[in-house]
Amino acid sequence: MQVLHMNKGNGDTSYAKNSTVQSKIISVGKPIMKEAVLEMLCNNVIESMGIADLGCSSGPSSLSVISEIMDTVEAANRLLGRRMVSEYRVFLNDLYSNDFNNIFMSLPAFYDRLKEEKGLECESCFILGAPGSFYGRLFPTNSLHFVHSSSSLHWLSQVPAGLESNDLKRLNKGKLYISKSSPQSVVDAYLLQFRNDFSLFIKSRSRELVAGGRMVLSFMGRSSTDPTTENSCYQWELLAQAIMSLAREGRIEEEKLDSFNAPYYAPCTEEIKDEIQKEGSFTIGRLEAFEIDWDGGAVTDIHTPHGKLSVGRRVAKAIRAVVESMLESHFGIEPDVMDDLFIRYGDIVGTHLSKSRTKYINLVMALTKKW
Amino acid sequence: MQVLHMNKGNGDTSYAKNSTVQSKIISVGKPIMKEAVLEMLCNNVIESMGIADLGCSSGPSSLSVISEIMDTVEAANRLLGRRMVSEYRVFLNDLYSNDFNNIFMSLPAFYDRLKEEKGLECESCFILGAPGSFYGRLFPTNSLHFVHSSSSLHWLSQVPAGLESNDLKRLNKGKLYISKSSPQSVVDAYLLQFRNDFSLFIKSRSRELVAGGRMVLSFMGRSSTDPTTENSCYQWELLAQAIMSLAREGRIEEEKLDSFNAPYYAPCTEEIKDEIQKEGSFTIGRLEAFEIDWDGGAVTDIHTPHGKLSVGRRVAKAIRAVVESMLESHFGIEPDVMDDLFIRYGDIVGTHLSKSRTKYINLVMALTKKW
Repeated sequence: MQVLHMNKGNGDTSYAKNSTVQSKIISVGKPIMKEAVLEMLCNNVIESMGIADLGCSSGPSSLSVISEIMDTVEAANRLLGRRMVSEYRVFLNDLYSNDFNNIFMSLPAFYDRLKEEKGLECESCFILGAPGSFYGRLFPTNSLHFVHSSSSLHWLSQVPAGLESNDLKRLNKGKLYISKSSPQSVVDAYLLQFRNDFSLFIKSRSRELVAGGRMVLSFMGRSSTDPTTENSCYQWELLAQAIMSLAREGRIEEEKLDSFNAPYYAPCTEEIKDEIQKEGSFTIGRLEAFEIDWDGGAVTDIHTPHGKLSVGRRVAKAIRAVVESMLESHFGIEPDVMDDLFIRYGDIVGTHLSKSRTKYINLVMALTKKW
Repeated sequence: MQVLHMNKGNGDTSYAKNSTVQSKIISVGKPIMKEAVLEMLCNNVIESMGIADLGCSSGPSSLSVISEIMDTVEAANRLLGRRMVSEYRVFLNDLYSNDFNNIFMSLPAFYDRLKEEKGLECESCFILGAPGSFYGRLFPTNSLHFVHSSSSLHWLSQVPAGLESNDLKRLNKGKLYISKSSPQSVVDAYLLQFRNDFSLFIKSRSRELVAGGRMVLSFMGRSSTDPTTENSCYQWELLAQAIMSLAREGRIEEEKLDSFNAPYYAPCTEEIKDEIQKEGSFTIGRLEAFEIDWDGGAVTDIHTPHGKLSVGRRVAKAIRAVVESMLESHFGIEPDVMDDLFIRYGDIVGTHLSKSRTKYINLVMALTKKW
């Protein structure tokens, strides 16, 4: 948990420059987010609206979601001819190691835009940083009205218990995540960790949200109950292939690949519903699945050699921006080997996608805190 | 305002490593802070206590003040045999360019200590970052109970109007701040900027604090009504001498020295009282002046050559950690010239202090928001 963070800054390998997929995911979920905000405004009088974005990261999307939510509220204000919300308290959350400095430096321009575009004065919008893990309490009781989280909840709080790298059993040799060849004990360990984490998340938010408050969550999942289905894990399968090819040349220790298991889980809708229903304080309004291209859906003809190369590279850069901190910490990979790894990964991905258009499954759900 | 920040990180010239003076100032003001917290607890029932530290910076003192305030509350809880406060909402404020990442990385250890030492669970203390200028609104109306600010309010929101570097009149040639030789118009411009800034500060906090809430402010001031008195400006006088000596060698442009005026003001108690009374929503409980050694009061015999040198160097490093970002931006000084500048400054300071033990005057005041 201390290690995982998106690549910082604004450079070529930064998350800020390589988060097209995450932006695409946000835009796919936008209608559901808008609907949830509007429904909430119809049923609640809100003097001061508490909004939290959990796992905000530090790219261009950090503030765009907030802006969208405020746009929706302001449009409702105009539609209904009165101010439904007169003050916004906005909380940007991510892990302690997130690049908050980068977000904060962009706030003066953001406040200027709020004033110009929405006529909002600085005393009606307060943006704060709330560092910490969302697997646990982050905010005071009954202090939030709307919680948003996108592309974050597929990260577990830790490597599944029993699969940590200091564990002597190497149950998932040569793999980074659940794979067709993983033993059932590995699959079980992943599911158990997801259940524990997700139920703690739901329980924590249920304390923080007011009755009638909404939560729109969007994260990677799968369309089948089978956890080894291609759209839930094939990006990891191919990354393991790229690491293995470097291990064969002695440039990465194969033993380290055997002991690595990503703190990631792509659940199916049943697994999610189970935990929400067990906790009991939320009703599920929507729970939908969207297919998302691995490269975020840019228009490129994958069947030309150039297209294959460029799609592969884009996917590799997008994944690198997210997993590099984790790989660096576990494998201790030198910068030049890291560069090589993601060149190979790009080639492998390009070749794969030219034959089979595997997509991510992104799940979007809208939950309401019961009265 | 976009430029001023303490030196980042944990290196040799960082603020984190060179903030002994600021720590000393916090410890001198501690009894007044404790008294204010206790008085407030006697008169108010507080379910969830909102605490803000304004100008928290990013050194070891950022969290130590918060810890002291919480210690005082917890001691009162024990003394009175019941929980006067059951939840803390803590807001760490500084300018957008402050190194918040550095503070946030120290939070996991801080939360661990809260649990071990004070038995506080993570759901009873929420620490947030609140970036922005305290010359304006930072928090929702009536959301705070206790505001603390140390070593920050002597910084103005800008270079006094009319003395900006793009102004063609060079009214304060060869000086960085008010000096014996400054014309009255310069002194007036500084006082006017202070009055505008400080009254905006007071007005903003009066909206944010609940009735009965307290504010303990501590910042550089002076003991005489004369703004050219040595204890209010001599550190700037000597820094101007060091810059001038480099200008004479052509290593810094003298013209840039002429056009520089520090966004700083050390007020006297009358000037402070005036603004508080004019605004009208606070009563002044205490307003005290403390002498603070330029090097924070380390035990060194200034009258030995070695002592003179080491005191001078310590003072130079302390000032460098605070003003370097400002000098860099205005003068465009290269790193090696910057090093030279502060070596010379250290020598000048050491020589001065061996003849005259000039001290800073630190003002500490406790204010109560009227009912």
